[in-house]
Order: sequence, then structure tokens, then C-alpha cells
Amino acid sequence: MKKAVVLLSGGLDSTVTLARAISERREVIPVSFRYGQRHSRELEAAKAVVKHFHLKNHVIVDLDLSAFRKSALTSKEVKVPKHQDVTEIREGIPVTYVPARNIIFLSIAAGIAETEGAEEIFIGANSIDYSGYPDCRPDFFDAFEEALRKGTKAGIEGRPVKIMHPILRMTKAEIVRLGKELGAPLHLTWSCYEGGAKACGKCDSCLLRLKGFQEAGLKDEIEYEVSR
Amino acid sequence: MKKAVVLLSGGLDSTVTLARAISERREVIPVSFRYGQRHSRELEAAKAVVKHFHLKNHVIVDLDLSAFRKSALTSKEVKVPKHQDVTEIREGIPVTYVPARNIIFLSIAAGIAETEGAEEIFIGANSIDYSGYPDCRPDFFDAFEEALRKGTKAGIEGRPVKIMHPILRMTKAEIVRLGKELGAPLHLTWSCYEGGAKACGKCDSCLLRLKGFQEAGLKDEIEYEVSR
Repeated sequence: MKKAVVLLSGGLDSTVTLARAISERREVIPVSFRYGQRHSRELEAAKAVVKHFHLKNHVIVDLDLSAFRKSALTSKEVKVPKHQDVTEIREGIPVTYVPARNIIFLSIAAGIAETEGAEEIFIGANSIDYSGYPDCRPDFFDAFEEALRKGTKAGIEGRPVKIMHPILRMTKAEIVRLGKELGAPLHLTWSCYEGGAKACGKCDSCLLRLKGFQEAGLKDEIEYEVSR
Repeated sequence: MKKAVVLLSGGLDSTVTLARAISERREVIPVSFRYGQRHSRELEAAKAVVKHFHLKNHVIVDLDLSAFRKSALTSKEVKVPKHQDVTEIREGIPVTYVPARNIIFLSIAAGIAETEGAEEIFIGANSIDYSGYPDCRPDFFDAFEEALRKGTKAGIEGRPVKIMHPILRMTKAEIVRLGKELGAPLHLTWSCYEGGAKACGKCDSCLLRLKGFQEAGLKDEIEYEVSR
């Protein structure tokens, strides 16, 4: 059975990615980060998802990104943009972009993969519905894989760690459908950029999630502040 | 004045690299890590070096690499190898290799560079005297730069962060000489893998340092447990 590190934020995309890795018979090592997010709601969701799958080896890495104070996801001084509708989401790189975040997460995952003898890293990156983040793009993953081939012991010895991004080219509706099909606990996931008791329903992430469920013809079972 | 993030461990190589960046008229941002090293001696050295240069913006990033328990530099269960002489140092990747460490440090440096608008990251990697670490090799840095070009906002927008490795191809003697020439505070640096009051003089890092000073015809002013 192949071992795989799976980056798990506790959101919809990473949870479906974890379910996919398990369905492909990988022995998974879920890895989450406590990196100074605005709220801990997402990490709690990650723990609930891990529990759902009866996994005992959840790695939570503490990482202080307080030096990255310009993203809306790590600083309370930057406001999360709110919209009435998904069509209002602006083009380009959003303020919720955390500089080099996926690069950092993948690097740490690569270190854990090498330590644990895992051959793959699964990441729930998505470039269709949300192409604003540069480190979610396919050519970035190719370049990063090459860096691991050149810069790790496993790579030098001919066993480079592979980056698996099974939902990279899926729409949110396809991700939701795949999640349902795989029995992923979508009701335990948290996508909202805010950390309230209920999801706000107005940030980019909520809007894309809601649109995904709607297009998939499925009900999103988490609670929202606004009625839908 | 160009801004540059400088990775500063507090060792000889990174201190000379910092001195080089300053001599090249960069506005430097020194970045160090508290990553579960066996000892804090190196980080204390980094702080002393920063103080020597009258820098006020030292960034110390807390990063929990306890999941990387197989390196002699992060685990007390793995012994640091000791030798009588530099000729005894084994070929290949040493047990002091921390999986993906430079990749992780560079990724975080890239995030800080992007946040601070820095154009460069200086790293004191060296591939001549110590080629055992895969992430100190020139082709790794090229591949990593490419990943930053593809995966960061700055890269996408045509202002990719460059990786500067001014001492990559220097021998330890050349690094020592350059350090002296630039007025780098070599007496404040710490290279030993152990964290004693004095350097052990027998680990790979001590032996290479001592050989460097000897070949440069200069006196190493730090204290060693063994008389030299």
C-alpha cells in the first residue's frame, strides 16, 4: 500500500481530496497547519474529518506566519471581501492570497513525506473555479515537483515525491459530486473565510461553494447566516 | 536600494552571506528559524550577528518540525557523528540532513519577500566543501527559482524573487577569507552541531570550519573543547 501525505485544511476541496486518496487505497498521513489563521474553525473541521475517517496519525504543524501580515486570511486588519453573488467576484489575485502559502505547505509536506517514506503528496488545489491563486496553477506544481526531484534525498536517489492534485481541473460542482460519490463528510467541512458559528454565505469561498452545490443539484448541509 | 531577505542561521556561511548582501548595498531583512533544533546556540549567534550589524528587523519564525524526527539536527535520538579528522567525513547524504529544510526555509523566505516587496533571497548554501545536502546544489536553486516564478504573485506579475547564493562555489577557506575581508563578525558565529559552551571540534561542521580557517591562514577565535 502506497503511503501519501494529504494536505488537509478542513475545507471542501481538501476533504474530497483526502477521500479520493483513501479510495485509491493509499495509506494516508493527513497534515494540517496552525499558521495564524483568523479563526480556528477550519482546523476544527479538519480534526472532525480525520475522526470521521478513523485516522490516528493527523499531523498538525505549528507555523508562525505573522510576518505575512498583508493577507486577509492571516490579518484582521485586512477585510475579507463580501458579495451578494458569485458574479461579483473580482478577477485577479484576491486579498485572501497568502504569499507562497501552498509552496510552504508543500515544502513541509515534502519533508514529512521523506521522513515517513511516503511517495506522494495530495493537495486539493483547484485551478478552474478559483484561478486567482498563483500557487494553484498546474505549471507551478510541475515546477515544484522538479525542485523536489533536484533538492531532496528521495529525489536524488531516484524516488522523487510526486504531487497529486486530483481535483485541479474540476469545477466546484464536480468536486461536490465526487465528494458525495466517495462518501466524503461534506457536512463537516468549513469553507467560509470567516470563523462564525455559521458560514457567512457572502465571501468568495462561501459563494463558490454554494454555487457548486446548486449546480450539482445537492443540498449543502452546513448552516449559513443568510437563508438560501 | 534593493531589499533582500537573508536566511541567517548564525553559522559561518550565512553570516558571511549577510555581510556580502550588506556590502552589495542591499537593505537586508535577516530571517532565522526556531525549528526544534537540538540547541538554541545557533539562534543566539544569529541574534548577536544581527546586533553587530545594528539591524532592527530580525524576523524569527517559529516552525515546529517535530514531525521530522529522523535527522540528527532535530532529534536527540540520532547521534551527531564525530571524527578525529576531516578526511573521515563520509561521502553521501549525512544523518544531519533535515528533509527538505532549505526548501522550507526558502519557501517561507519567499513569502516574507513577497510581503515586504523584497526582490532577492540570499542563502549561504555551499556545494563545494559540503555537497552531501541535496538542497545545497546549484540545480536545485534553479528549479526552485522556477517554482517561484510560476507560483507566486510576484512571479506571475513579472517580478520573480531571485535566489542569491554568493558562496555556493567557494571553499570554506575562501568563505573565511571573504568574511574577514568584509568585516563579518566570525567570532560571533556558531557552526558546531552540538550546543555546548564550547564548540566540540569533532563534528563534520566543526572539522570543516577548522580546516577552512587553517587553509585561509587565519585564527578561528571561537573556543573549542579540544585544543587545536
